Order: sequence, then C-alpha cells, then structure tokens
Amino acid sequence: MGILIKNTLAILPDGDRDRVKRANIYIEDDRIVGIDDLSSSDRENVPAGFKADKTIDGTDRLVIPGLINCHTHSYMAFMRNVADDLSFMDWLFGTIDPIEQKMTDEDAYWGAMLAITEMMKSGTTCFNDMQMNIHQTTRAVRETGMRAVICRGLVGSGDDEGGRMRINQTLEEKEAFADCDRLTFRFGPHAPYTCDDAYMRIVAGEAAKHDMDIHIHLSESVSEIEQIREKYGCSPIELAERCGLFDRACIAAHCVQVDDNDISIMARHGVSVVTNPASNMKLGNGFAPIQKMLDAGVNVCLGTDGAASNNSLNMFHELSLLTLIHKGTGKTPQCVSAAEGFRIATINGAKALGLADQIGSIEKGKKADLAILDLKNPSLQPKNNLLAGLCYSANGSEVDTVIINGQITMEGRKLLTIDEELVYNKVNAIIERMGLDKKEY
Amino acid sequence: MGILIKNTLAILPDGDRDRVKRANIYIEDDRIVGIDDLSSSDRENVPAGFKADKTIDGTDRLVIPGLINCHTHSYMAFMRNVADDLSFMDWLFGTIDPIEQKMTDEDAYWGAMLAITEMMKSGTTCFNDMQMNIHQTTRAVRETGMRAVICRGLVGSGDDEGGRMRINQTLEEKEAFADCDRLTFRFGPHAPYTCDDAYMRIVAGEAAKHDMDIHIHLSESVSEIEQIREKYGCSPIELAERCGLFDRACIAAHCVQVDDNDISIMARHGVSVVTNPASNMKLGNGFAPIQKMLDAGVNVCLGTDGAASNNSLNMFHELSLLTLIHKGTGKTPQCVSAAEGFRIATINGAKALGLADQIGSIEKGKKADLAILDLKNPSLQPKNNLLAGLCYSANGSEVDTVIINGQITMEGRKLLTIDEELVYNKVNAIIERMGLDKKEY
Repeated sequence: MGILIKNTLAILPDGDRDRVKRANIYIEDDRIVGIDDLSSSDRENVPAGFKADKTIDGTDRLVIPGLINCHTHSYMAFMRNVADDLSFMDWLFGTIDPIEQKMTDEDAYWGAMLAITEMMKSGTTCFNDMQMNIHQTTRAVRETGMRAVICRGLVGSGDDEGGRMRINQTLEEKEAFADCDRLTFRFGPHAPYTCDDAYMRIVAGEAAKHDMDIHIHLSESVSEIEQIREKYGCSPIELAERCGLFDRACIAAHCVQVDDNDISIMARHGVSVVTNPASNMKLGNGFAPIQKMLDAGVNVCLGTDGAASNNSLNMFHELSLLTLIHKGTGKTPQCVSAAEGFRIATINGAKALGLADQIGSIEKGKKADLAILDLKNPSLQPKNNLLAGLCYSANGSEVDTVIINGQITMEGRKLLTIDEELVYNKVNAIIERMGLDKKEY
Repeated sequence: MGILIKNTLAILPDGDRDRVKRANIYIEDDRIVGIDDLSSSDRENVPAGFKADKTIDGTDRLVIPGLINCHTHSYMAFMRNVADDLSFMDWLFGTIDPIEQKMTDEDAYWGAMLAITEMMKSGTTCFNDMQMNIHQTTRAVRETGMRAVICRGLVGSGDDEGGRMRINQTLEEKEAFADCDRLTFRFGPHAPYTCDDAYMRIVAGEAAKHDMDIHIHLSESVSEIEQIREKYGCSPIELAERCGLFDRACIAAHCVQVDDNDISIMARHGVSVVTNPASNMKLGNGFAPIQKMLDAGVNVCLGTDGAASNNSLNMFHELSLLTLIHKGTGKTPQCVSAAEGFRIATINGAKALGLADQIGSIEKGKKADLAILDLKNPSLQPKNNLLAGLCYSANGSEVDTVIINGQITMEGRKLLTIDEELVYNKVNAIIERMGLDKKEY
C-alpha cells in the first residue's frame, strides 16, 4: 500500500540536528520510500512510479517520528492511580507485589491494551517493556499494530528453578512470536536487589549464547544503593559490570543514584540510560544527573515507567518534564534544550533499542513509524518554533494520526486497531474484582 | 436559563476534603442552585420548580470546579516559544521587552484571545492577569465569557509621570468595564526591580484609597534578591511589607527565593503565594519552597505565568508539575498530594482572588464555573481514583464542556464564544510581521 502525506510540515534530520521543513512524504508498505523537501526546487526525491492508495492532506499538520518509550511495564496500566504517595520500597513490596500476586494473564493482557491505547493516542509508536506474564503484552502488540521490544522480568538466586524457568520463558516467547517483525526480545534481569550476582552472571551468559541484549533497572533508589553496597561492597552499576551484563548492549532504567565512576563505567561500555523523570519524582527518588551523563557521552533516552508509578504513559508529558526539571535543579536555563530533548525521545531511543537504522527519525529507507499532529491546537500556536512547542507546550492530544510499520493505526484520533470502550470496561472490571476502587462514589 | 447535569460524577467538597460523588447538578442563570447527591436516598436537594432548558448527560463524565490560573500575562501568548534557554534577566530585558516595544494594542488583544482559547480548552475558568495594554485583555474576557481578575502592570520611580499615568489607567479601565461582572481589578506593581520603594508606597496608598488589592512579582530570581538587597538592605518580601503592599490583600507571584523570615512575614499578613513551577524551572530560577509555605499557613495557589516563559497555559500541566516536583526535590513521596494539589489549583486560587464565596468549588449558591471531563480517555482509566488522575495522568484534553458564569462556552471541545481559526491566523501574522518565526520552513 502506498501512502502520500502531502504538503506537510515535518521534523527532518539535518546532520546531527533536526529541522522543521515542508515536504511530501512517500510511504510504500512498511517503509518511507521518499521525502521530497518542498523548499528545494528539484523533484529528484519523488520515488519513480509511486502510486498513492491514500493521500493525507498535510495542511496545518506536523509529521514527527513516533516517540519511543524506552522503559515501561505496560501490564501495569490497570494499576494507574492505585498506589500514591508511597516510598519506592513500600510502593513495590507493600502495594504492587500483592496486586501482581492476584493478577491473571487476562488482567496483564488488558493492562497492556490500555497502555497501548494511551501510548498510541499520544504519539508513541514503539516501547521497551518489562513484563511478568509472557504471551500477554506480546499478544497485545501483535494485535494492535504497535512496535515493541519485550523482556520477561527475571528474578532469581543462583541457579534456582524459578530463575531458570523465567529464562526459558524469555526464549520460548521469542520463538512463539518470531513471525511478528514488530517485536524484538531482550533478557530482563529485574534489578540487583531481586536478582543475586550468580543469577545475573547466568543471565549474561544466556544473553551472549543467544545473541540477545539486556534491559534492567539500576540505581533507582537510595535504599537500593545501600542494600547492594552492604551485600557486595560496590554500587549496582559496578555489580552489573562485574556480572557481565554490560558485555551485551544494555538498557539501564533510572540511574538516579549514580556517581562519576558509575557514569564512566556506563560510558565505557556503551550502556544506554533510560531516564524516567515522573516516576523518579513521584516515588521520591529524585533527579538523575542527566547533564553529567550526556557530557560523558552516555546515550540517554526517555521512558515513562509503568502507570502504577507515573501515572501517565504520555511521552509528551515526559518530554516536558525532561526539558524542564534539569533547568530547575541545575539553575541553568540552557540545560536539556528542546532540540536535545526531542532527540532523546526519538533517535536516542532507537539507538538504545538497537533499531537506529529502522526507526527514530524520518528518513528514506526507515520504517514508517510516524505521528501526525494537528497544528490547529492552541498549544502549538503560533507556529514559529515547533520543536520548542513539542517539548514545552504540546500535551499529546494534538496527535491526530499515527502510522506504525506503514499501517495507519489511528486517524482523526480514532484508534483503528483497538476497541477503546472494551478496554475501559475490562480494566474497570479488574479494579472492581480486586477491590482497588476507592469507593468514594 | 436552566441547565441540568444529570447522573454525573463530580468532585464535591466534604468538609476540608474533596470527594468524588455521583450527583445531579442544577444550574439557574449564573449559579449552581442545587446538588443532588445520588448516593443519598433523599431528594431534598432538588430545587423546587427547576426547569431544565438544557440537560447534559453525565454518563462517563466528571464535573470539576473550573481551574483557577492565579498568575499569567495572557497577551504574551503570541510570544509562545520565541525565547527559550535564556536566564531570567536576559529573557526579560534582552528578548521580551524589545518585543513589547513593538507590540500594538491589537497584538495584545489577539495574544489574550489565544491565551483564553488555550485556557478554556484545558478547563481553566478564571485567571489572574497582569497586562500592559489596557482595554485589550479585558475586551477579550468580556467577549469570550471568561472570568478574570485584571491589573495593569505598573512600573515607576517616585511620583514620575509614567508611573502616575499607569495608576490612572488602572482606575480608568476598572470604570470602563464596570458593567462586566466577570471582571474584577487590582493594582499591579510589577516587581521591586521595576518599581522603586517610593512608587510602591504610592501604589499601596492608591490601593487603600480605592479599596483595591494587589498583584505583584516577588522574589523570583537570585539576581532580583541581590539587586534589592544591595539597594535597600533587605529582601523583596521585607521591602514590599515596608512599602505597605501587604496591608491590602496581596497576591505574590513566584516567591522562589524566600527564607524563613520572608515566609513568616507573608503568613502574618495573609499574603497569597502563586507558585509557577514550569516558568521557574524554565528560566533556571529553581523551585519555590512550597511545603514550608504550606506548613507556615500561607495560602498557596497555582499559576502558569505567561506563554513566553512556560510555554503552556494548561493548568493540568502545571498541576502535574506541582504534585511531582516537590516529591523529587524533598525526596518525599508524600509531599503535595493529589488532594492538596487539586485544592491549590481551585479553592486556594479563589481565596487568593477574594472570590472564595463565588468560585473554586462546586457548591450550592456559587457561580457555575465548571469543567466537564470525558472519562472515555485512557489517561483517566481505570476510574478508581479520579482525584489522583486529575493530577498525575490527565493532560487537559479530557475537558469536553466548559461552563462559566452559567454560560456554556465550550461543548464537545468546540469553543462557542471564540473563532479559533481566526485567532490562529492573527497570532501567526504578528509573528511574521515582527520577524519572530525561525524561518526553518
């Protein structure tokens, strides 16, 4: 199928910068096959013999690469707003864990469906997920046309049976969904306080054996740092390095409590750090030293974390936090500019996921993963500096149309691959069954 | 005209808390005339002889008191995203001031129209504004059905002619708009670094003489503190007190750089502090010590500041920042809860404006200033804890219908009192005329 997005504004890469240009964008099947920059007089970028089955009028619209949410737990979306105002360990072990004990596969599936609904409606086209129940988030991704990188959260000690079983589930699921090219898989050792060093070594070995990469939580809270230092005499980052997790391409979520040595270890190994500003603030963990990591050459990307700790999966909200909070903590208005923030939310995410040749920017030959924003929204008016608008004033509801892998999944804000009403009914039923509604009405 | 909002969820005050309840809400002309709590079995709160000219189905909807934006400069909306990544004094004197020199009355009017468009679409029903060009924001408020408290920004030294002229403009405008009961007026001495002490004393005297109140910027940046301390040997808060500004009901915007003595002065005088989290971060000024002020009994309310420094006028965005950032800076997940944040964005604002008997909560006898949210949005699903949802996951686009002073000003997200397209065309023309577009496309 051929799609032409005609006479639109678009954010296009220009060397190591992004620029807003007027263009025609040509899509054939799953890929961008041509970008015709209308500010130039030659028409050499019109693909020969292109036939548009569908033409989208780009007047008063802005096309951006779909945002990439590099750390979430989509099944948790049904737990949105169930656990507020708790410290990290009370939140995890006192509230979330008990809910997960009662969670069925179907619950996890509908949670993921709600998460995908929210992400798609706010312009996210790819997410990096740590799940607990295999075949559920994956199933939701396959059905909805989303793109995702999936790991099964691994918890274990030494070579215990549970830990081994979870490793096998990772491999089993990868095989079961090998037919869906929108899905890739990683190993997901949960964190140094839920996996011991022997288990992390086993996981690193399995990753090497199967040529797979890693997604882990690292250095999120002060209590994690204290626990790990007491048990191993080193930081979580040092421990992960020792266990060989950084010998694979590794995505480390959070990294709030890191020192200069931790940062230099991660820079040396090419670890990608996912910052999750809302979750880190909400759980009282603080602010990750993003500017230091950027200065050290660490690839920083952006994530929402799960809806149980954010409580939003809207990457525009997260992008706004990213570009505001470090100006506040550092008292430097130059810190994390709009241009930098936008790259963190797009191409840096693609790099972290090992997909930079496929997604993360609007380029000929890349997958057609796009969000089309309606500029007739007050948040994006006047139209003088749209890159700043995306970070500082947009809220995500400006996204009108979403294309993933060349498929239109939302148009006129109506999702074409998801029955929203059904999703809402299902997640409210879970809340009711588990007795989690506040019974105020 | 009678409006019945039938079988809806609503946030209703219950002592000093807010609760989500199912209710019928009865509106007659500009006021709420009855709230029938459907969880109770008696029907005593149905107003006798009520006739509904219009019935709004409340199924899957949540009615909230309209949000109150306690500090903004609405004319600045046409300057959205023109001046990023600048320190406060460079931003104000290097970029904004030169634009204001070129600004006509018409520019200020269309800026205010854009601001009102954005605020109304995101559930704000009243704002406290400091303007430069009289008759412009006021005109926009009168035409659009908005509610506002207005001051003319006053700048002056001693009894110079310009300063006197601006005081007279304040009084002249108050008289010119006396027919519009949605407008009230204050004196607006801009700041201690743009008004000298003699002028602030004159303004305080005029305020007393005309029984009017005060709106001022105080203690926003470190450089302001340094300037004032060098010139007067005291803090901006101490200076404002000495000049008599706190003898009237005073709204102090920002108060980022305040110490314990400043806070106790403000608490003693009943000064209301407007916090503007986005603007304070964006200009590198930092974080106001909100928890300390709340603990000292200061009435804290919330504002967006102008779109030139935020760059959003969406109070849901600001509410999310308010309830997140202090958890991060204080490393305390309990700091500024959702319940507290919501009151800061509503009833505390009404108190600051001297309108607590009129607006700020859904109560019989108060003005009908309401926002009706569509719960069929992923950000508010599941529906288990909607007060948390309003702060942590809503983005403002859930607002479907807005009622101000009993008039429906938006329905199905369509503004009924504003020609949006015309507003966008006008503000883009200003940007073009002033050469402020980035010319990237």
